[in-house]
Amino acid sequence: MTVDQRKVEVGEQTAEFARWPRYRAAQLGFAEHWYPVLRSRQLRRRPRSVTILGQDIFLKRDRGRVYALHDRCAHRGIPLSRGRQVFPGTFSCIYHGWTYDLATGELVAALTDGPDSPICGKVRLRSFPVEERAGLVWVYVGDQDPPPLEADAPAEFITPGAMVAGRITQRFGNWRYAAENGFDEAHAKFLHRNAMWMLFRHFPAWMRVKIVEDDDGWISRVPTEIGYETDYPGLGQWPKGRPWRFKKGGARVSIRMPGTLRVRFREWTHYEWYVPTDAEHHLYIQFMHKRTGPVGRLLVRLRYWTYIHWLFHWRFNDQDRHMVELLPGRSHPERLFRPDASITAWRKLCEQDHGIELSVDARRGNRA
Amino acid sequence: MTVDQRKVEVGEQTAEFARWPRYRAAQLGFAEHWYPVLRSRQLRRRPRSVTILGQDIFLKRDRGRVYALHDRCAHRGIPLSRGRQVFPGTFSCIYHGWTYDLATGELVAALTDGPDSPICGKVRLRSFPVEERAGLVWVYVGDQDPPPLEADAPAEFITPGAMVAGRITQRFGNWRYAAENGFDEAHAKFLHRNAMWMLFRHFPAWMRVKIVEDDDGWISRVPTEIGYETDYPGLGQWPKGRPWRFKKGGARVSIRMPGTLRVRFREWTHYEWYVPTDAEHHLYIQFMHKRTGPVGRLLVRLRYWTYIHWLFHWRFNDQDRHMVELLPGRSHPERLFRPDASITAWRKLCEQDHGIELSVDARRGNRA
Amino acid sequence: MTVDQRKVEVGEQTAEFARWPRYRAAQLGFAEHWYPVLRSRQLRRRPRSVTILGQDIFLKRDRGRVYALHDRCAHRGIPLSRGRQVFPGTFSCIYHGWTYDLATGELVAALTDGPDSPICGKVRLRSFPVEERAGLVWVYVGDQDPPPLEADAPAEFITPGAMVAGRITQRFGNWRYAAENGFDEAHAKFLHRNAMWMLFRHFPAWMRVKIVEDDDGWISRVPTEIGYETDYPGLGQWPKGRPWRFKKGGARVSIRMPGTLRVRFREWTHYEWYVPTDAEHHLYIQFMHKRTGPVGRLLVRLRYWTYIHWLFHWRFNDQDRHMVELLPGRSHPERLFRPDASITAWRKLCEQDHGIELSVDARRGNRA
Repeated sequence: MTVDQRKVEVGEQTAEFARWPRYRAAQLGFAEHWYPVLRSRQLRRRPRSVTILGQDIFLKRDRGRVYALHDRCAHRGIPLSRGRQVFPGTFSCIYHGWTYDLATGELVAALTDGPDSPICGKVRLRSFPVEERAGLVWVYVGDQDPPPLEADAPAEFITPGAMVAGRITQRFGNWRYAAENGFDEAHAKFLHRNAMWMLFRHFPAWMRVKIVEDDDGWISRVPTEIGYETDYPGLGQWPKGRPWRFKKGGARVSIRMPGTLRVRFREWTHYEWYVPTDAEHHLYIQFMHKRTGPVGRLLVRLRYWTYIHWLFHWRFNDQDRHMVELLPGRSHPERLFRPDASITAWRKLCEQDHGIELSVDARRGNRA
Repeated sequence: MTVDQRKVEVGEQTAEFARWPRYRAAQLGFAEHWYPVLRSRQLRRRPRSVTILGQDIFLKRDRGRVYALHDRCAHRGIPLSRGRQVFPGTFSCIYHGWTYDLATGELVAALTDGPDSPICGKVRLRSFPVEERAGLVWVYVGDQDPPPLEADAPAEFITPGAMVAGRITQRFGNWRYAAENGFDEAHAKFLHRNAMWMLFRHFPAWMRVKIVEDDDGWISRVPTEIGYETDYPGLGQWPKGRPWRFKKGGARVSIRMPGTLRVRFREWTHYEWYVPTDAEHHLYIQFMHKRTGPVGRLLVRLRYWTYIHWLFHWRFNDQDRHMVELLPGRSHPERLFRPDASITAWRKLCEQDHGIELSVDARRGNRA
Repeated sequence: MTVDQRKVEVGEQTAEFARWPRYRAAQLGFAEHWYPVLRSRQLRRRPRSVTILGQDIFLKRDRGRVYALHDRCAHRGIPLSRGRQVFPGTFSCIYHGWTYDLATGELVAALTDGPDSPICGKVRLRSFPVEERAGLVWVYVGDQDPPPLEADAPAEFITPGAMVAGRITQRFGNWRYAAENGFDEAHAKFLHRNAMWMLFRHFPAWMRVKIVEDDDGWISRVPTEIGYETDYPGLGQWPKGRPWRFKKGGARVSIRMPGTLRVRFREWTHYEWYVPTDAEHHLYIQFMHKRTGPVGRLLVRLRYWTYIHWLFHWRFNDQDRHMVELLPGRSHPERLFRPDASITAWRKLCEQDHGIELSVDARRGNRA
């Protein structure tokens, strides 16, 4: 592929979003939101660097608390995460020892310029609000004062005492394609039909759904009509009946800003986040959640690691990963069909969040 | 290399073709022609995807016949070649089960939207005419009704009953550089002089040639003067005489649109096609051809696989591949010399094919 | 990283040099200068190709002398360095045997066009002045008549009879970042503090320096105040005292056009050159130099290969390499501090070299 062709494709990639201008502009995601970025136990003494919404963010645990700063020394732009800690509560750039306060981002010493360095106190790195809940590190990206974490993180998910287990991977593809794939109603019935996870499930051929608004900003798809073995005129029957497969109550699938998916099964709930990295990558965060007692937690964890992790979070969701990888670089005018009502509902939801100040205030008010 | 430098180079790459505007514009080749793309036996039950003239093409054999469609589902652009066959005579996209008629490209079912999906019959994928002849799959790329395959494929080559054996490889470099290298008169005498294939051949140092028009759209180079060991003023003699090399009647080399080379040796004929993939790659198709009886075919095949394949189609033509790889990204104002008359004749040939309608009609007429 | 982001970054990369327009424009270095490019013993019978200041240069040793030509055949741009030598004093392009005089670059024969080829004498490749001194091949890049090598190469370095040993590597990053890192005063005290090379050295925490002009175009940093273990207000002491480390007289560090660093230790001198390749790469040339008798040379060579090469030229300078790699693609508005006076002095030095004719004349005059 030539450079020019590639540029055209990246450009066209967003053309199909023309009816949803706010969504179209959100190639790097929506600011003024909390995002999960890392497992708590992935962050020990060594600092880490993550890129979300196009921002390079330095994460460092110091005496138990986690701090987040822009991962670029203000001097010449070397990543702060390459540096080392000389004094507690601070972190120093590896190149010239510029030393920043972890809590405020203020330059408190430029070690190689001596104790009277005139630059001290004149430079400040952008710092990001951080919370640790449900075993995850959450970062707020935005210019406003942050609302409480509860404004974005599902209340059920961050309430202590539940079994939470999952997977965080860096994936190719714009975050919007991943979110659309997550809430997309139709593809599971064809793409996932032969996944091992589906072996004993009787899967519909097609559905009619309506989209309903739930509280807390969620929208959900609710089936109004379901078809199993179906005759297609002039073609034949699809799918073949499989006697060993039995029908189960379907899961209720919901999505909300800023890109959080919830799938409620009968016994437990599956969550996904699509955290934008850059225009072509996202963090794909998959967690199962179940509220139960201490013994129950152990049993569910066992169940997760014996099959749910491998069959669902890995093999099944890898079919999705493959689709998301194929979509983005390969721009193509989209031609939506009836089941894509779920996708357009999600796009509209992103549009409704009018004006950033309003939305933050509103979200803050809802919780106050 | 920086992005900017690279772009400049790709741009300049075509600057040297300024005197041949139609040729210059044909970075992705000439539409309204038949191209060989695949061996017949490479296409069994599984579909294949090839990219020619910048078009992604899905190829599928169904009940013996080969069909070609645009390799992008109209829904969201997933390659159709990743899909599977649910009903005979159709093929379904892996993502949502959009099901296309192989012969027409029409959307005959959107499986996950049920039997009454309103989108059926409203979408059609571009389909490409296909022929199978001489053990190859040929595809027509163009907006016009196609002329018969004979308009582009050499009559001798596609007449049944001949021994045909060869090689298809994806190579780096714009197709025009490969075509020019093929018909170039002078380089063989220097570049290929020490190739094993040439071990017993007494190769001229230089030639004077004239270009003649043959029938069926071919132009050929015909030597008018040949020099062997030569004294270069102030330098010395080149090449050294080699007593074990004996002179042979030279081969007659011809080229025609849309990029087909023919080298007639005394006993057999070598064909090449340079099928544009994208601006920087082409399919390089090399085949030997000999008309003979059934026993003769076996003997020629034996000869091909014992040495012609290795010494000629592989080692000898790899010296050409190396030159074509070095040419394209490395733009440089060209400075032609006398033997390049063969190259400029080929460029002129591409210009003469005035107007696409005219040429198709003419070619059709010629055969009718 | 998307193509667009990358382009923006490459563009911004030079924004920080806005106050030094000549320096800013010198992304590919300063023409009208001599540069070392290769060890003499790396150039035997086979030709070599090097790229400096964005120019591809063909180097060939012929009967003892070294010649440099533009590494592109004028015909179609194939690198001359892929060719072979047919006649002494000339070199022939591998593709069609265009044969150039090594001393002048003139086309003296186009072998495959016979002895009377009309193109002979009408084409000339750009040739570059070459010198061999101190075991290195030096090339002059410029449009003017070259001054003697002494105008650019340090007199001490190229005077015969010294021990010279070192390393030439291709590194990532624009040459200016490498030069700035070389003359940068402050970083060593933090970045290199724990390098093995520094194990027994008592390293200051900070310094005040002044920049002085030396003869022959060098500028040097001279310390005016030195701090060792230091108390930083509100933070604590840095660095910790190490009883086994002892203070040594510091080295005198100097730089000059076109990017030559000299570090005078007590017993020997370390030289570096940052030779621009393209916008994102440079040749990093590191050599130690010591004038001594024949036995002394042997001993110094032994010392070099037992530890100086590994601990200084490799491990210590690799910490620098790492910083230079992190700087360029990651554009960031720079925010200089007091010790960066050494860097701004170097940038100013590059500005002072007003007008190329003047500078060449002046340099020539100085030596005449």
